Amino acid sequence: MKQTLLFKNRVAVRARASIVGKKEGAGPLGGRFDVVLDDDLLGQKSWELAESEMLRRAACLCLERGGLDVSALELITAGDLINQLMPSSLMARSLGRPFLGLYGACSTFAEGALIGGAMVEGGFRKNALCAASSHFCTAERQFRFPLELGTQRPPAAQWTATAAGAMLVDREKAPAQARLTHGTIGRVVDFEVTDANHMGAAMAPAVADTIQAHFIDTARDFSDYDRIITGDLGYIGRNLLKELLVQRGVEIDDEKLVDCGASLFYQEQDVHAGGSGCGCVAAVTCAVALDNLEKRAWKRVLVIGSGALMSTTSAQQGESIPGVAHAVALEVDE
Amino acid sequence: MKQTLLFKNRVAVRARASIVGKKEGAGPLGGRFDVVLDDDLLGQKSWELAESEMLRRAACLCLERGGLDVSALELITAGDLINQLMPSSLMARSLGRPFLGLYGACSTFAEGALIGGAMVEGGFRKNALCAASSHFCTAERQFRFPLELGTQRPPAAQWTATAAGAMLVDREKAPAQARLTHGTIGRVVDFEVTDANHMGAAMAPAVADTIQAHFIDTARDFSDYDRIITGDLGYIGRNLLKELLVQRGVEIDDEKLVDCGASLFYQEQDVHAGGSGCGCVAAVTCAVALDNLEKRAWKRVLVIGSGALMSTTSAQQGESIPGVAHAVALEVDE
Repeated sequence: MKQTLLFKNRVAVRARASIVGKKEGAGPLGGRFDVVLDDDLLGQKSWELAESEMLRRAACLCLERGGLDVSALELITAGDLINQLMPSSLMARSLGRPFLGLYGACSTFAEGALIGGAMVEGGFRKNALCAASSHFCTAERQFRFPLELGTQRPPAAQWTATAAGAMLVDREKAPAQARLTHGTIGRVVDFEVTDANHMGAAMAPAVADTIQAHFIDTARDFSDYDRIITGDLGYIGRNLLKELLVQRGVEIDDEKLVDCGASLFYQEQDVHAGGSGCGCVAAVTCAVALDNLEKRAWKRVLVIGSGALMSTTSAQQGESIPGVAHAVALEVDE
Repeated sequence: MKQTLLFKNRVAVRARASIVGKKEGAGPLGGRFDVVLDDDLLGQKSWELAESEMLRRAACLCLERGGLDVSALELITAGDLINQLMPSSLMARSLGRPFLGLYGACSTFAEGALIGGAMVEGGFRKNALCAASSHFCTAERQFRFPLELGTQRPPAAQWTATAAGAMLVDREKAPAQARLTHGTIGRVVDFEVTDANHMGAAMAPAVADTIQAHFIDTARDFSDYDRIITGDLGYIGRNLLKELLVQRGVEIDDEKLVDCGASLFYQEQDVHAGGSGCGCVAAVTCAVALDNLEKRAWKRVLVIGSGALMSTTSAQQGESIPGVAHAVALEVDE
């Protein structure tokens, strides 16, 4: 298979945890998350430390749910949007377990899940905790403008979610919430979008590329999944994705195509094109997708995290924004 | 094994390539690298594009050496020091193959080698190209001062190497240059160093932790290796590592302990505490360690890449610099 890893032994999802900020908690999915924060600063002295603390709490809650003592954890895969992965590194420092830091922008949760899955399926690790986070306040000040400026946001802009998700996988045969069966590694695709406030457009081509690669590799299509869940294309990117899939000759089922970013907020919450951020797909996957699988409301889903690989340096140099998307297939035991 | 992955089938190193800048080419290892650049800008319009082009050339040279068409490449693992991995992302865009972006600061080459090794050993990918780069001019302006300022550097400062290395691994049984037999995943360790010009001190505790973990997991010690090769501790960090290993009760053999950063430049080249950067350990491993293994001058080495997980944000917030170190064991066929 050209881009897809097959987990024949079906890696078990043992536990999951999700934490979101106040605004995310007030959205349509608010009741599904494990924790809705009262205070997005979490009592810390900086937004970066707050994001790290949120990620740490998600990781610890997930371990607690899985009944795994941190000393028995064999791998952490994690990442975020912040320069040099400050939130993830500090979280990993506090956990003190083997740590692989990843950067795939908002594709990081899926990237970590497929690496963690491969490490467990391949027999290299007994278990792995796959986590990712984002925070509105750290991302805005790093990528765009100081919050204090109150800069007006264009209609295509997306709202970086304050959210963290963590998933614990292992290779036990015992009944699992869900099973990780495939991971599809994305290629970097660039349609020469240069507007950092148009990320859905920058990422949609990579998502189309990865969905098609997954379908070709696995001989599956929309009919094999209850939902095809994209990370944070938002309203605009979701529509572009449909066009791109049609162009590629992929038959789509519009009702099965769900975007986490487009689901996280009400339109009245003034988030323009929808939510985004590594934590968006991580938290929604853990809170909604895995929950629906566990309840057997869904039997099989494909989660595609997509990242806009931009930096302030690349933007200032006039470079376009390359996209990348990684996918993981999750299903229930028969 | 607590932190170590065992590659029972011994992943084959099929090809390697290294490119360095002018200053690195004038150092004691200058004659060993595949390419020494005339122009560290490589004809590009920015240092970031130059670093990306250097990494791309190393990747392509490695594929050429391995006789592998890029269309048959099943995985790229890569990373660098620059925000949001701009050099690696643009390299991956140009190659168009499945890409996992990694951030482990200067530990990235070892991190990528152990992930690539696991993907190949586990049967998930037929081959993987593991690459990393750094560039003096991109790193200085991002982490420290604009070059134009001509800021004086303190004696403990290290010189970020302009260098890239790439290694192609596969699972063929045919005779190989060397074999990847183990990967040890590091933990984040922090001895509360806050000086970004004292990276050797920030990283040495993580290196000691990973070396000891590797020895415990594999029941090996210094006597099992021809060389224990650290990435870029430099002169100061190397001495601290020895102290820390002794404190931990690890018996050391000083002559076998080699640091890439401390080997890359002559003292007269005014690099103070030695070289550093993701590209330093990548290029020296590909040019020297794998070459000596191929020539059977060495039979077995342990390469430990170590990263100082700092950012300008964490430094401005007064945070200490956590370190992480990953290791890979390389040996020849009997």
